[in-house]
Amino acid sequence: MNLQTARTLFREKMDELHALNHAGGVLQYDGETVAPRASAAGRGRTLAYLSGKTYELQTNRALNEAAVFLLAHRDELSEIEAREVEIFLREKEFTASIPQEEYVGYVTLQNRASAVWHRAKEENDFAAFAPVIREVFDTNRRFCRRYRPDEAPYDVQMGRFEHGLTMEKTDAFFDTLKARIVPLLKKVLEKPQVDDSFLRGKFFPVEPQREFAEYLMDVICLPRDRCSIGETEHPFTTHFNRDDVRITTHYRTENPVYSMYSVIHEGGHALYELHTAPELNGTILGKGVSMSIHEGQSRFMENYIGRSRPFIELIFPKLQALFPAQFAGVRAEQLWLAVNKAEPTLIRTQADELTYALHVLVRYEIEKGLFDGSVQAEDLQAVWNAKYREYLGIEVPDDRRGVLQDSHWSTGYVGYFPSYALGSAYGAQLLAKMKQTVDVDAVVASGDLRPILAWLEDRIWKYGALRDPMDILESALEAPFDPRYFTDYLEEKYTRIYGL
Amino acid sequence: MNLQTARTLFREKMDELHALNHAGGVLQYDGETVAPRASAAGRGRTLAYLSGKTYELQTNRALNEAAVFLLAHRDELSEIEAREVEIFLREKEFTASIPQEEYVGYVTLQNRASAVWHRAKEENDFAAFAPVIREVFDTNRRFCRRYRPDEAPYDVQMGRFEHGLTMEKTDAFFDTLKARIVPLLKKVLEKPQVDDSFLRGKFFPVEPQREFAEYLMDVICLPRDRCSIGETEHPFTTHFNRDDVRITTHYRTENPVYSMYSVIHEGGHALYELHTAPELNGTILGKGVSMSIHEGQSRFMENYIGRSRPFIELIFPKLQALFPAQFAGVRAEQLWLAVNKAEPTLIRTQADELTYALHVLVRYEIEKGLFDGSVQAEDLQAVWNAKYREYLGIEVPDDRRGVLQDSHWSTGYVGYFPSYALGSAYGAQLLAKMKQTVDVDAVVASGDLRPILAWLEDRIWKYGALRDPMDILESALEAPFDPRYFTDYLEEKYTRIYGL
Repeated sequence: MNLQTARTLFREKMDELHALNHAGGVLQYDGETVAPRASAAGRGRTLAYLSGKTYELQTNRALNEAAVFLLAHRDELSEIEAREVEIFLREKEFTASIPQEEYVGYVTLQNRASAVWHRAKEENDFAAFAPVIREVFDTNRRFCRRYRPDEAPYDVQMGRFEHGLTMEKTDAFFDTLKARIVPLLKKVLEKPQVDDSFLRGKFFPVEPQREFAEYLMDVICLPRDRCSIGETEHPFTTHFNRDDVRITTHYRTENPVYSMYSVIHEGGHALYELHTAPELNGTILGKGVSMSIHEGQSRFMENYIGRSRPFIELIFPKLQALFPAQFAGVRAEQLWLAVNKAEPTLIRTQADELTYALHVLVRYEIEKGLFDGSVQAEDLQAVWNAKYREYLGIEVPDDRRGVLQDSHWSTGYVGYFPSYALGSAYGAQLLAKMKQTVDVDAVVASGDLRPILAWLEDRIWKYGALRDPMDILESALEAPFDPRYFTDYLEEKYTRIYGL
Repeated sequence: MNLQTARTLFREKMDELHALNHAGGVLQYDGETVAPRASAAGRGRTLAYLSGKTYELQTNRALNEAAVFLLAHRDELSEIEAREVEIFLREKEFTASIPQEEYVGYVTLQNRASAVWHRAKEENDFAAFAPVIREVFDTNRRFCRRYRPDEAPYDVQMGRFEHGLTMEKTDAFFDTLKARIVPLLKKVLEKPQVDDSFLRGKFFPVEPQREFAEYLMDVICLPRDRCSIGETEHPFTTHFNRDDVRITTHYRTENPVYSMYSVIHEGGHALYELHTAPELNGTILGKGVSMSIHEGQSRFMENYIGRSRPFIELIFPKLQALFPAQFAGVRAEQLWLAVNKAEPTLIRTQADELTYALHVLVRYEIEKGLFDGSVQAEDLQAVWNAKYREYLGIEVPDDRRGVLQDSHWSTGYVGYFPSYALGSAYGAQLLAKMKQTVDVDAVVASGDLRPILAWLEDRIWKYGALRDPMDILESALEAPFDPRYFTDYLEEKYTRIYGL
């Protein structure tokens, strides 16, 4: 083998892997968005076939020999090539630790679990959901044991998706948050509540909500020829390359704010994928580097931009024009207060910034319990409801608004939840850093958000997966990550809103 | 090799081919429906990869040896197995006649041509369209020459999609039609025209049109868990297996009748795919047998059912309820007359039953000319417009309503058009046969269309591709195909409507 043959072989096989991922990704996206319900079984068979091919490619001997050869000659490679080889070998190591049959079986399971979840949520049927979720968690735990037999499985699971993340770090992070958020929330709840009655008891038709979503996509500069919007039960973002990014939303006719923040949140994810450097496109590095850095971008757009006063003032005239009767006599300030009202509620994706981390904490603790065996899938309903009582002080009236609300576990996103809280905290520190050189409020007020996006592109987005997550983040911050930026932000914000 | 090993290998490889077709099909469907425009290049690369795998499988030596072995032992096979082997070898023979690079290149070309057509139609830009259509036709002609060097390429092309069809048969068919339709149309145009002014100059919002589409899908008994509806510039139907069928429509706000007949027409295609026998599912036989038998089903639903008086009376109350202002004071009879108004128009998909075959004739003659070299792609605009002047007596004002109107050529459906006219004629004879045992008008009037669907399922749909197209049709008819059923139907219908 020489450098040229190794390079050629590696490139060829990486392109094949990319094509297989693309095809599987579109099948899944189609399944989540527009496919008829009975299509799940047929899709499962085809996804199994494609994942078998992926497994065979990742564990292909010639490819692996080429990768090892290239790694031994990394001084002769470009930065991108060297990193591609490194990430390929890291990801492949996990795959190779699992027998092909189990690897393919898990893809089939995910496809089935997603279909089960959709029906279970619709029918409020926890009993249908529990067995499939047991299978999902059992499989993930088994995979972690095979991959890293000497480490705690949940550490392994988190580390797979977020290189370097552990329970110890995450526990410490949540302890910092709890210590500040719980007393702050208590103080807020002692004050008179924000009046958001103007949003209630009204009907908001879908068509103008669609038009509003299109408008918001323009405001946050999503290029429509490279980014589409679809509708799903649970909003998400996916991408197949930097020219093909998809966000989804859910239009709730009782409240246009739900879709509004889904669009801005998913739009934040999409902006990241749309701005990875062109030279990374089609490589294994052409993607957001990790879950929590991703959530750092989406939560940044959703909260630090989307819930700011100048942003609400910017978009309110359009909202009012689309729903003239519903917003008659309402001022922008009222909407700004309403979208920042802090109170314990049932649904994570609708939660305010203050209680949001508590929703995530519930899920994080449950995942830990499912991994260490202290929680059983069959008990999830009871455990979930008890934790909502404990942390948020509310009763869960049904599982649709309880343990069945999120799509994550059923689509294989196990170990993902902590990244929402981490991302929120990253975002706060990014905002503080950005404000040193960008007048963020003035930029938002101007309606041209490009200076904000350019800052993020230059410091985070363009790198894709070229470096490890914390390297990228802490280079952007020019400082170590510190969750106190987040708690300081919350304290300052809610003190102002509630006059604490 | 023994029977069991040959069987196992054949089944395994056929399942792989099915999975590859499924993945490629979903990518294409996604590309036509919801993908962002800039996704075309990335999709082209992945489709090329998948088609390369398909090529390798179809021409795989072990698979072909197994197929030949099985064919030699066909007495020991089930009817389905034997037919699968036969059809596989027939389709593979075409593939194997083409070098892999050209086979894959054509898939890439189709993907590119589809993107070019979308933009060209939007921008009324024939100059952008002509070169890519030249490539599409050149490639198809070259493939036909490779496959059957001794036959006329257009005969080969038609035969690929419609086993047994030739120019000689098609010419004779159109001659029969022309001889009756042209004088009939002349007589119609001498009479006072049907008044459809109540449909003009009004605005029909998309939302109630969507609801009407859902209603129509229920009326024609499309099971929604196995069949979805999407929106595209040009309506079409596709399927991935009998549990996953997709129709699309296009909502035109100036006229709800366009989407109405798109839904019923595509619904006819979908019904066929949804009712192939379950034991054919996932095999190469689990699909409608040919283009014109397919059009026989879709045109049957669209015209013989959908334009019948009892059908209009059945659905009119719903239409009126959804558009109360637009249909105020209108009676069902007026709509029935309006949807059966015969006059030369520009758009094939909006044409009445009488002039429809002339639209198809224009395209058929152009395809013949492109294949034999008497028409050049660059002259398509001029030739198209001249033929519309000759056959329909109208001037084409722009290419969007002229040569750019159909998506077929740009998506590789070359040689498809004749099947629309053939299918219409098959449908007329099927109707006559059905009426011997089913009181079709009474069934439609009852609102429960199942007896009609059961008749078609039992005589046509369930067979999938288990037998050759004309075998299935003529068994259903218990007689040879005779286009005079179609011309008799037209004469009777338009004599009644126009009082000839």
